[in-house]
Amino acid sequence: MNESPAGLAAFAHELADSARAIALRHWRRGLAVERKADDSPVTAADREIEAALRAAIEARFPDHGIAGEEFGRLRPDARFVWSLDPIDGTRAFVSGSPLFGTLVALLRDGAPVLGAIEVPATGERWIGGEGVPAALNGRPVAVRKGRALADAIVGSTSPAMFAGDAAAARAADRLRARAGSPVWGGDCYLYGLLALGGIDLVVECGLSDYDYLAPAAVVRAAGGAMTGWKGEPLGIGSTDRVVAAGDPALHAEAVRLLNGG
Amino acid sequence: MNESPAGLAAFAHELADSARAIALRHWRRGLAVERKADDSPVTAADREIEAALRAAIEARFPDHGIAGEEFGRLRPDARFVWSLDPIDGTRAFVSGSPLFGTLVALLRDGAPVLGAIEVPATGERWIGGEGVPAALNGRPVAVRKGRALADAIVGSTSPAMFAGDAAAARAADRLRARAGSPVWGGDCYLYGLLALGGIDLVVECGLSDYDYLAPAAVVRAAGGAMTGWKGEPLGIGSTDRVVAAGDPALHAEAVRLLNGG
Repeated sequence: MNESPAGLAAFAHELADSARAIALRHWRRGLAVERKADDSPVTAADREIEAALRAAIEARFPDHGIAGEEFGRLRPDARFVWSLDPIDGTRAFVSGSPLFGTLVALLRDGAPVLGAIEVPATGERWIGGEGVPAALNGRPVAVRKGRALADAIVGSTSPAMFAGDAAAARAADRLRARAGSPVWGGDCYLYGLLALGGIDLVVECGLSDYDYLAPAAVVRAAGGAMTGWKGEPLGIGSTDRVVAAGDPALHAEAVRLLNGG
Repeated sequence: MNESPAGLAAFAHELADSARAIALRHWRRGLAVERKADDSPVTAADREIEAALRAAIEARFPDHGIAGEEFGRLRPDARFVWSLDPIDGTRAFVSGSPLFGTLVALLRDGAPVLGAIEVPATGERWIGGEGVPAALNGRPVAVRKGRALADAIVGSTSPAMFAGDAAAARAADRLRARAGSPVWGGDCYLYGLLALGGIDLVVECGLSDYDYLAPAAVVRAAGGAMTGWKGEPLGIGSTDRVVAAGDPALHAEAVRLLNGG
């Protein structure tokens, strides 16, 4: 078994390939048909994808840990742990939107060192990490730097993610009021756009670790910065709110503003 | 020249084909490069697409009118008028998102009778109108009916579109509070998702006529209803706020709620 960065990246591609095949069998299937919640195509896709990815990891790296959205944690204290979000962007998926994805991250000693953002419906896959140059479908990508906050495009998936915490909503509004323009929607795709240099900041709240660990590895490999709102590093269970920026100076400014500075 | 519904639909496909080719030459071009606003890829794409579409219309239907976002109105009193939005979803386009589109509508005696929602980056095209069955890439599509408001998915592009009018914002919030779940982002793609049966309602504000005339024709052809917020029919300059629903009964309920009922 090859645990070099390139070998691990090749394995992440295998996982993403199988996630793509399963997701596309379920996406937009019988959209207009009413069902019970536990019988929906997204529920089926979620479970099938995570089960397939877990089986592949256990076969290839039986000593690695796994932390998945659907089936929980296995060997959480292993040196290497795979974080899995089989369908990120559940609401997009059920709406028939193509902007949902499968997220795969590898943590080493608690820190994300490899990430893949697989977007089955558009046929796009971002990958990047330590020793793995950031790429979209094999072509190198890099963040945009040097844009002032006043001109920055700031992405967030939904106002609803800020609705449960008035202080967080105010902090994000304060940042957005100083920025150039907002974009809404996107889930994991926002981090892909950041890694492409299309947007400058992503500010989100109410997330789980599997939502942000793969994006964090990709964004950093593309030259950007991504942490919790206090600037702290991201790991399993580290926070529910993250801020990502293409330009590390813009990231520092955003962290200051989110904390009242 | 063939002015049957099928002949006009074939011509709309020709217009969408040329829009797609131009848009894809500009999309994601030099994303991370800073430019003056009037030198951006989206500005170039906007102008090139509308110029190409106007030239094709003038060559084929020299007595038809044209109302375009970029180059204004020509023969606005003609019986047939083409409404053109070369890039709907400008912010999505500049962000590198695939969810932007070219909108082409044909009005007869002031009412939209044919619409095309062309999405170059995903390779998708919705078309539909009077005598033209609603289809996505040639496959029939239909709205979802029978879902209660409390379970309905409601789409809007951005909270910012409601920011200029407190009464409109409150009305849309009131509707959203009674609905199942919101989705954000999407521009013209939202109406495509509605026509697919993936979402149930779209409520928007701050729009221009070229933003909603093509969606209105597609949504109606797919079995849905789409009007201004007071339930009035849509035409050139008719309103800046629209409500679309897959189920006409849900549309009537949404109109009531938007008007304080």
